[in-house]
Amino acid sequence: MKRKGILVVVSGFSGAGKGTLLRGLLEAHREQYRLSISATTRAPRTGEEYGREYFFVSKEEFGQMIEQDALIEYACYVGNYYGTPKDYVVEQMEAGKDVILEIEIQGALKVKERFPDTLLLFVTPPTAAKLENRLRGRGTETDEVIRDRLRRAVEEAKYMDQYDYILVNDDLDVCVKEMHELIQAQHLRTSKNRALIAEIREELCCL
Amino acid sequence: MKRKGILVVVSGFSGAGKGTLLRGLLEAHREQYRLSISATTRAPRTGEEYGREYFFVSKEEFGQMIEQDALIEYACYVGNYYGTPKDYVVEQMEAGKDVILEIEIQGALKVKERFPDTLLLFVTPPTAAKLENRLRGRGTETDEVIRDRLRRAVEEAKYMDQYDYILVNDDLDVCVKEMHELIQAQHLRTSKNRALIAEIREELCCL
Repeated sequence: MKRKGILVVVSGFSGAGKGTLLRGLLEAHREQYRLSISATTRAPRTGEEYGREYFFVSKEEFGQMIEQDALIEYACYVGNYYGTPKDYVVEQMEAGKDVILEIEIQGALKVKERFPDTLLLFVTPPTAAKLENRLRGRGTETDEVIRDRLRRAVEEAKYMDQYDYILVNDDLDVCVKEMHELIQAQHLRTSKNRALIAEIREELCCL
Repeated sequence: MKRKGILVVVSGFSGAGKGTLLRGLLEAHREQYRLSISATTRAPRTGEEYGREYFFVSKEEFGQMIEQDALIEYACYVGNYYGTPKDYVVEQMEAGKDVILEIEIQGALKVKERFPDTLLLFVTPPTAAKLENRLRGRGTETDEVIRDRLRRAVEEAKYMDQYDYILVNDDLDVCVKEMHELIQAQHLRTSKNRALIAEIREELCCL
């Protein structure tokens, strides 16, 4: 019996350390996970590559993807479209890989609606003070940008309890380990083992 | 913030290796887990001790426990009552210990109804053939007893999908590790982290 992959959606406050966490997870368990790459209509920035950061497509191409139901979810931010191509996700899950989508809350809830088996993870620092420290600690953002991120965090926090699990990213190694064990445990969910249950039932009746 | 314990109910076919599995788990993580001890009206067998295998009580005492709502669940088998005393479970959970109840399916479903946060685990060998082999391999049971256990397994298998997770006990060490990681992951569930979420929300608004 080939084990199918899990669809994992990761959201969280800007400054929660999602990027570092996902890099840590993929480095530690390269064979188990695949990161989904979004399609976008925004122009590539210097150094960005097609198929690495994003699949950069035209508005027409993006429109076709929507029409052909080729996107799991999509959304528009600041005049640009962003979406999750379905084919890659489905292929990798069929191949037994756990596929990770790092997307915003609205997209996350849409994915869960469409695929109820999706695992929704919310990443947060242990306290709001630590979130602010991290945002300031980057040293790259203006005070205005930081205020804006914190205002967005207030909005995002309203949706935390719609997620399945809360990952507190305090110690990175601990958090990577917790995230890995948490995702792997989902493979043991009853809903993921219907075939095994059916087989045992049938076999028991024939003994 | 003091972390509360998880209530875990373990059921499974006779011959699935539940006893060995729980011993393995408790030996590996003695500080984290507590095994709930049932009260029963049946007489102690040679070598059994009050408070170790069971709390041996009279029918009158058992009746009082029922009246005082001192049992999480109880059932009658072959003329004897068996039940799970509530106080010990609640105390240990408050102290942060994950409490494990090894009980039959009907009791398990009753506990879940009363405490929806309970984690229901079903232990099974990888195949029905292996189950039969294990039952025969014990060498202590008559053919009639084995047939009877297998007939009961057919009945029990009907309830497998009411459990949250299926633990396939093939390699004991792997299964102990999976069980531990699975239970620990439950501490990260959103429903277990309401206080943390409330704190972060409040703190964010005051920044």
